[in-house]
Amino acid sequence: MTKSIPNLQVALDHSDLQGAIRAAVSVGHEVDVIEAGTVCLLQVGSELIEVLRSLFPDTIIVADTKCADAGSTIAKNNAVRGADWMTCICSATIPTMKAALKAIQEVRGDRGEIQVELYGDWTYDHAQQWLDAGISQAIYHQSRDALLAGETWGEKDLTKVKKLIEMGFRVSVTGGLDVDTLKLFEGVDVFTFIAGRGITEAPDPASAARAFRAEIERIWG
Amino acid sequence: MTKSIPNLQVALDHSDLQGAIRAAVSVGHEVDVIEAGTVCLLQVGSELIEVLRSLFPDTIIVADTKCADAGSTIAKNNAVRGADWMTCICSATIPTMKAALKAIQEVRGDRGEIQVELYGDWTYDHAQQWLDAGISQAIYHQSRDALLAGETWGEKDLTKVKKLIEMGFRVSVTGGLDVDTLKLFEGVDVFTFIAGRGITEAPDPASAARAFRAEIERIWG
Repeated sequence: MTKSIPNLQVALDHSDLQGAIRAAVSVGHEVDVIEAGTVCLLQVGSELIEVLRSLFPDTIIVADTKCADAGSTIAKNNAVRGADWMTCICSATIPTMKAALKAIQEVRGDRGEIQVELYGDWTYDHAQQWLDAGISQAIYHQSRDALLAGETWGEKDLTKVKKLIEMGFRVSVTGGLDVDTLKLFEGVDVFTFIAGRGITEAPDPASAARAFRAEIERIWG
Repeated sequence: MTKSIPNLQVALDHSDLQGAIRAAVSVGHEVDVIEAGTVCLLQVGSELIEVLRSLFPDTIIVADTKCADAGSTIAKNNAVRGADWMTCICSATIPTMKAALKAIQEVRGDRGEIQVELYGDWTYDHAQQWLDAGISQAIYHQSRDALLAGETWGEKDLTKVKKLIEMGFRVSVTGGLDVDTLKLFEGVDVFTFIAGRGITEAPDPASAARAFRAEIERIWG
């Protein structure tokens, strides 16, 4: 049995290109995956992807488009700029997800993947349809706004994450994560932990990323 | 009883700023609402909103962000560039929608509105929660990818549109609409018809917009 250690992903949720790039430069070499966040893509466009690709030629780069429609166009637009992975919102139709997957793989080959972003009332029936469509990555969230409204990680979240993993998904988790929260997931084969401000807004972002990494190694290593 | 005539909205679904602006200049004065489409926002960022606002100081401008999270930040980013309305995906949480509404109205006053984009398996219970959160615009879609996969407008769509209107929503409809499709909605108090390529890719976009308008007047005038 091989033991897999969760990846660490940094989300660049800045509203300006300069801030995002500065954060990427400071922590990009400490993480496995760099995410061009939705807020930033909607502000500055896919130029962000191109800059990240030029700075980090070998790192996995995710375009967090939360694509709901026009899957082919949006995936192609981001793939040609250098995105390996792209997110689709769970309420997108299966044809949208399939079109996105096809388009990203046409440009990026087998490295191209679609991740389903889980918001709202998705069901395991939906999840099975995503698997059947060839999509095996899902992102389990605590929404930023729900966190601001006082919600937090709990047993019901862990149960869903575990069930998705049993179904065959590689599951990333995100939303209000810090080094102290990681141990909540002990015993769960999380694929990737995604942190944003917990890393990028730290006084020393590279050191914050290394602290996440050390805690991941301590628990899953 | 006042009779309301549906609005006409053009969606700028281009992958480049120049194409979107050229289309806007050619039809912007023929429509009630100009939409900065998701594809274009993800490609070029909210600069598109700013250019549209400068060209059309009085027209309603929608940022079709399909916002799923970080409602406050995304709404503020678009509102300060000049967006009056912004879309949220139906699977966003209520806190996200409320945060977006608050942020857009802080910048745009009463003119600021949030529209819920209906994709996937939303329910009327969800719809009532949106109304209760102060959001009374909804956008009923045929997804572009579903249309490409052979789906079309049918009685089940019209039933849902009518039910949402009865609940108190102003409902926009979109997805593969052309002048000949409008009569399917005869007798339904559609708030806004949204057309993209049906107008912008026509040999004479302004004339295509006027043809939509004439058919709307014929049916609802």
